[in-house]
Amino acid sequence: MEQYFVKETINSNKFQIVDPETIKHVAKVMRHKSGDVISLVDPTENLFMATIDSIDPDSKFIAVDVEKSTKNSTEMPIDVTIACSLSKKDKIEWITQKSTELGAKRIIFFDSRYSIMNWKPNVVEKKLARLQEIAKNAAQQSKRRIIPEVIYVDKLKDLVQYKAEANLVAYEESAKQGEISRLAQTLNEMPKSVICAFGPEGGFAPEEIDFLNQADFLSVGLGPRIMRAETAPMYFLSVLSYKYELTVK
Amino acid sequence: MEQYFVKETINSNKFQIVDPETIKHVAKVMRHKSGDVISLVDPTENLFMATIDSIDPDSKFIAVDVEKSTKNSTEMPIDVTIACSLSKKDKIEWITQKSTELGAKRIIFFDSRYSIMNWKPNVVEKKLARLQEIAKNAAQQSKRRIIPEVIYVDKLKDLVQYKAEANLVAYEESAKQGEISRLAQTLNEMPKSVICAFGPEGGFAPEEIDFLNQADFLSVGLGPRIMRAETAPMYFLSVLSYKYELTVK
Repeated sequence: MEQYFVKETINSNKFQIVDPETIKHVAKVMRHKSGDVISLVDPTENLFMATIDSIDPDSKFIAVDVEKSTKNSTEMPIDVTIACSLSKKDKIEWITQKSTELGAKRIIFFDSRYSIMNWKPNVVEKKLARLQEIAKNAAQQSKRRIIPEVIYVDKLKDLVQYKAEANLVAYEESAKQGEISRLAQTLNEMPKSVICAFGPEGGFAPEEIDFLNQADFLSVGLGPRIMRAETAPMYFLSVLSYKYELTVK
Repeated sequence: MEQYFVKETINSNKFQIVDPETIKHVAKVMRHKSGDVISLVDPTENLFMATIDSIDPDSKFIAVDVEKSTKNSTEMPIDVTIACSLSKKDKIEWITQKSTELGAKRIIFFDSRYSIMNWKPNVVEKKLARLQEIAKNAAQQSKRRIIPEVIYVDKLKDLVQYKAEANLVAYEESAKQGEISRLAQTLNEMPKSVICAFGPEGGFAPEEIDFLNQADFLSVGLGPRIMRAETAPMYFLSVLSYKYELTVK
């Protein structure tokens, strides 16, 4: 059963869907009829089963009867921000889609020294709107209760505004054999929020790592293999899900 | 420093690279000269620092002086096979690349009931050769010590040939809140080998799950969000790396 986000809080058992894009998808793409059931998620992160009552012939609204679902939330019990160095269009779109599936709450793209590109100020709004749309669609498909926020910061320094309880930067870590990693040590403390920064394909510049370390971002390794820039955040999010959603007793 | 796999076992401090593709990459693409250092990995999974001595003007060989490296292996201490339902070309190429970066030893594609496509017998060899090439390149880039093997099986039933110590199938699991997941339970036993099967976008058919369960593939959930077919194997491999490479004391 497909899910749609609505912008209005649902607080009665009658509701009208008014977002033109959602109406189009429900009525034209999926060709739903009266009596069909869809899921709606409202800004309070509640999930509702919505039975279609009527579809306005002029496509101005869809009237539904709603019932609040008691299903557990699909949101991670930790507030996760991933911050990725800017990359090519298809890579950042891919990072946005996959990070949404994997439970990120906030996805930041930043300009770093060895980024292969940057965004000119006049395109930022349009680029972010496109990524936010990708995040929304992925959030609906993966049955999230929120749409992750996509943010752009043009200076690495501005990342400190988004500091969390645990602040990390993915970087080679010289772990001794058999030693527990700094990532595992950090997660064992079960922080309630975390941000992790990921460098570009060419890596962070040493002064960028110095800056982040001095701003209390701890360098953590993600295993012995070299991952591409877009793979590392997926690894990180998967590990968080495992630690917080599959192993906690 | 870039890494290349060689087919011959290196057992002296002199070696000749004879693979035409590697020669082309070293001499023409990277434009290496005498004195430059590259990494070589041989079939015994040993890593060598190789200093270029001479490049044959006819590109028949590159003579190198080699020194065995004492660096730790980058291979996971568990033998991991992922088995994915066949999908579109770009998705299976992507799965092959990312699974290699994330440490899989064996990547199987299989035809399942709701797969959106299958391979005709006459294209299997060509398709596998292409995927094997992607795996080789990704293995070199991520500094693996082996190239994962890419395999095609046209019947789900044939997956049982690849059974390991732990046999899993990714499937919705109705975990009670606060319960430790079956995946975590399985990994806590620290098996030495594991295979996990992943269904297509439309999921496994109930009789396919029944078959796998009866063949002792345990159904395991991968958290509360719905992941796309290509995302789930990445989640699984990341979790294995975390469990076996970052948290073992």
